[in-house]
Amino acid sequence: MPNIDEYLQSNAERFEAELCELLSIPSVSADPAYRDDVRRAADWVTDKFRRLGFATETITTAGHPLVYAVSPRVDDAPTALVYGHYDVQPPDPLEQWITPPFEPSRRDGNVYARGASDDKGQMLTHVNSAEAWMAAEGRLPINLKFLIEGEEETGSENLEKYIVEHAGRLACDCVVVSDGAQFAPNRPAITYGLRGIVYYELRLIGPNRDLHSGSFGGSVTNPANALAAMLAGLIDEHGKIRIPGFYDDVIQITDRERKGFELLGFDEREYFDQIGVDCAIGEEGYTTLQRRWARPTYDINGLSSGYQGEGAKTVLPATATAKFSFRLVPDQDPGKITAGLKLRLAELCPPGIKFELHSHDFTGSPGVLVPLDSPAVQAAARAIEYAFGTPPVYTREGGSIPIVATFHNVLKADTLLLGWGQSDDGAHSPNEKFSLADFHRGIKASAKLWEELAACGFAENVGCVKRTESDAKQ
Amino acid sequence: MPNIDEYLQSNAERFEAELCELLSIPSVSADPAYRDDVRRAADWVTDKFRRLGFATETITTAGHPLVYAVSPRVDDAPTALVYGHYDVQPPDPLEQWITPPFEPSRRDGNVYARGASDDKGQMLTHVNSAEAWMAAEGRLPINLKFLIEGEEETGSENLEKYIVEHAGRLACDCVVVSDGAQFAPNRPAITYGLRGIVYYELRLIGPNRDLHSGSFGGSVTNPANALAAMLAGLIDEHGKIRIPGFYDDVIQITDRERKGFELLGFDEREYFDQIGVDCAIGEEGYTTLQRRWARPTYDINGLSSGYQGEGAKTVLPATATAKFSFRLVPDQDPGKITAGLKLRLAELCPPGIKFELHSHDFTGSPGVLVPLDSPAVQAAARAIEYAFGTPPVYTREGGSIPIVATFHNVLKADTLLLGWGQSDDGAHSPNEKFSLADFHRGIKASAKLWEELAACGFAENVGCVKRTESDAKQ
Repeated sequence: MPNIDEYLQSNAERFEAELCELLSIPSVSADPAYRDDVRRAADWVTDKFRRLGFATETITTAGHPLVYAVSPRVDDAPTALVYGHYDVQPPDPLEQWITPPFEPSRRDGNVYARGASDDKGQMLTHVNSAEAWMAAEGRLPINLKFLIEGEEETGSENLEKYIVEHAGRLACDCVVVSDGAQFAPNRPAITYGLRGIVYYELRLIGPNRDLHSGSFGGSVTNPANALAAMLAGLIDEHGKIRIPGFYDDVIQITDRERKGFELLGFDEREYFDQIGVDCAIGEEGYTTLQRRWARPTYDINGLSSGYQGEGAKTVLPATATAKFSFRLVPDQDPGKITAGLKLRLAELCPPGIKFELHSHDFTGSPGVLVPLDSPAVQAAARAIEYAFGTPPVYTREGGSIPIVATFHNVLKADTLLLGWGQSDDGAHSPNEKFSLADFHRGIKASAKLWEELAACGFAENVGCVKRTESDAKQ
Repeated sequence: MPNIDEYLQSNAERFEAELCELLSIPSVSADPAYRDDVRRAADWVTDKFRRLGFATETITTAGHPLVYAVSPRVDDAPTALVYGHYDVQPPDPLEQWITPPFEPSRRDGNVYARGASDDKGQMLTHVNSAEAWMAAEGRLPINLKFLIEGEEETGSENLEKYIVEHAGRLACDCVVVSDGAQFAPNRPAITYGLRGIVYYELRLIGPNRDLHSGSFGGSVTNPANALAAMLAGLIDEHGKIRIPGFYDDVIQITDRERKGFELLGFDEREYFDQIGVDCAIGEEGYTTLQRRWARPTYDINGLSSGYQGEGAKTVLPATATAKFSFRLVPDQDPGKITAGLKLRLAELCPPGIKFELHSHDFTGSPGVLVPLDSPAVQAAARAIEYAFGTPPVYTREGGSIPIVATFHNVLKADTLLLGWGQSDDGAHSPNEKFSLADFHRGIKASAKLWEELAACGFAENVGCVKRTESDAKQ
């Protein structure tokens, strides 16, 4: 693609500058204080698509807006739906950032900012590749529909509704998502599995006010003590989660997968060094990669109770709260997990305590597995090899992109998960970064992908029926 | 005491106004942000003693200042050391206060403010009674030494040092402390036992930064999960604390005490209604009063980890912290408890986690029991009956006044614990209050106490040798 490649080279600096522009907008979707900033990010993305000449809409939802953009019609070409998100995780703990989270800083070949890798940087690779085709060739080889949301970090609830209600409009041959990591530096991956998630807030309520731990201690159930006991009671000493039916629907790891994981040559020592941990830990009977990719987990995400200031306060707190989540694997059902959890919590809850279980905006999402033999996967493999100079490896991923399950269930479309990030990007941590080299290779791979998908012959392949808009409506 | 009683009546309003003045000063000793306010409170107390004509000093310490004041010498009269504190607990959670914590509000016969009961209001009863004697009679019937500190709520470490280093100067026949509660409204008590305390901050350290719970969850020990398990592992399902040797030195409750507690007619229903709890809970085999007064306890005072803001953040936190404390009873030794705790935590700490155990300024203090047959206790009983119209009951107390153990060990003096407060004063809670009727009865009882102590004949009584300043130095 000589014209395209030249265009990418001569516009590389502007692409970086635009990325930094978008990264400067603190579009934290979880915190209502940032509502206007989230809107500004949506507007920025909308403007970008308008400049490409795409039919673009900013779609109002009950939460943050969706940006939807469609490329000029190319007859007899397949359609890819590109999904991404312009919202970001909260930036705290703020004091741990070397440069402020919303003042992008380019150093060591990376750009540092909240959202650099997750997902603004990765999302823009596909927007920029489309721009390159339009500018250098005057047209795309394929039909593209972009669906860029602002609520990925809070559960994509409104996007989910939109997809269900507008399945016909969104009909496509496959979905393309870049919101993850390569297997390692210079080892790009196609991710064929994702974990799902259910996320909860558990609030324990004891006495009607904070009490003096001297006068009352010993006679009243302390909600913080009860919280520790209840949270500890959700897992056993072998790392097995103690919820009725929790493992009933887990698809076991196949022998082929076990071998595939081994062949990746995952460097466990390096992995643990990178995060400052000195030993492998987790559910007994599984390797570290298996635990991360193909086994469900239980993590407490936040604890809050009583006095947290400096010094000592001898308080018996009235309430105690935990945020915690389970990562799920196919075919665990979030609804069944929540029902089992409620039973278990009722069993664990001591006298003198009432509990409330909330799920925020997370209704939960199941895990996903994508077939490796589809023509789209093979097209993506060729595009990646073109841009990165090496064929991709095939991996699963511990994180969740809840919407991918919806694409599968509602649009009947498989999703190409082409992560351009790295596992140490710090997606939900301080000092999030994205490699600028990966940013540019991602753009190039994406540009090639449009060409490869156009030629892969969706309709002719077994197990991959080309769907029309009217089909998808049914 | 007709002159005294008349003086108290005609100055009642001014006493209340002065109390409100002192309550307006936010002397929160635990939080360095209030350092200047703590100093202002010390100055206020110093000024008050100077106006009484007492020899007064504001003593600088490594922390907050001590106020020391000595009444004009009365020959051949015994000496009482009055201890109190002008510092207060932190006021949070602020949003639960009906009126602001440092804007005293008089309503329903109470004054509402942080420190009203603990201990500014109670401490001032003894200052005001001394003023009444000086003004109405021109002299006190006894020698008084006032020792008013600013670090009671953070462990009294500097006071402790001062007492050890100045035992001769502080020599006395008995110590008087009002920093507790009556048994019930109109049922004044002499408290003959206090629990001790050891307070800790436990910090667990896992990975070197917050991680994405999807990418890393399952392969890394989560410090918040570990914290829940470790805290839960410190107590069993029968309410017994699981630390080696924890119960070895516990003085068991005597039959006489069991009967005494029963005769108090403690209304358990009312107690639990008041704090909004529906059942009696705690160590198996003990009544509610026994658990509060005479059994050691384990309470988590604060929990903090990960994301505590609104909404959901899928973080695997790098650290998790708990503040927790044990209330101790005679003869448990704080040092032995800490040693046992360290062993137990090391046993409970999972691989992949490092832990740090801090004790703030609390080096820990043992519990205290005071003999009921001393002449000072009998004198106090008569003074209380004079002011309250009813003889006192004899109780123990679940809270801790660490310094009382020091008075016993260093000054060889027993302490009269004459609490004028009520158990629902909210000493460490929002909307702390103190009954104005109790404030005035407390002043009257205190005034009578000076007369009764002067006449009780300390030196003549077996087991109560009058100590001189030179004796105490030895």
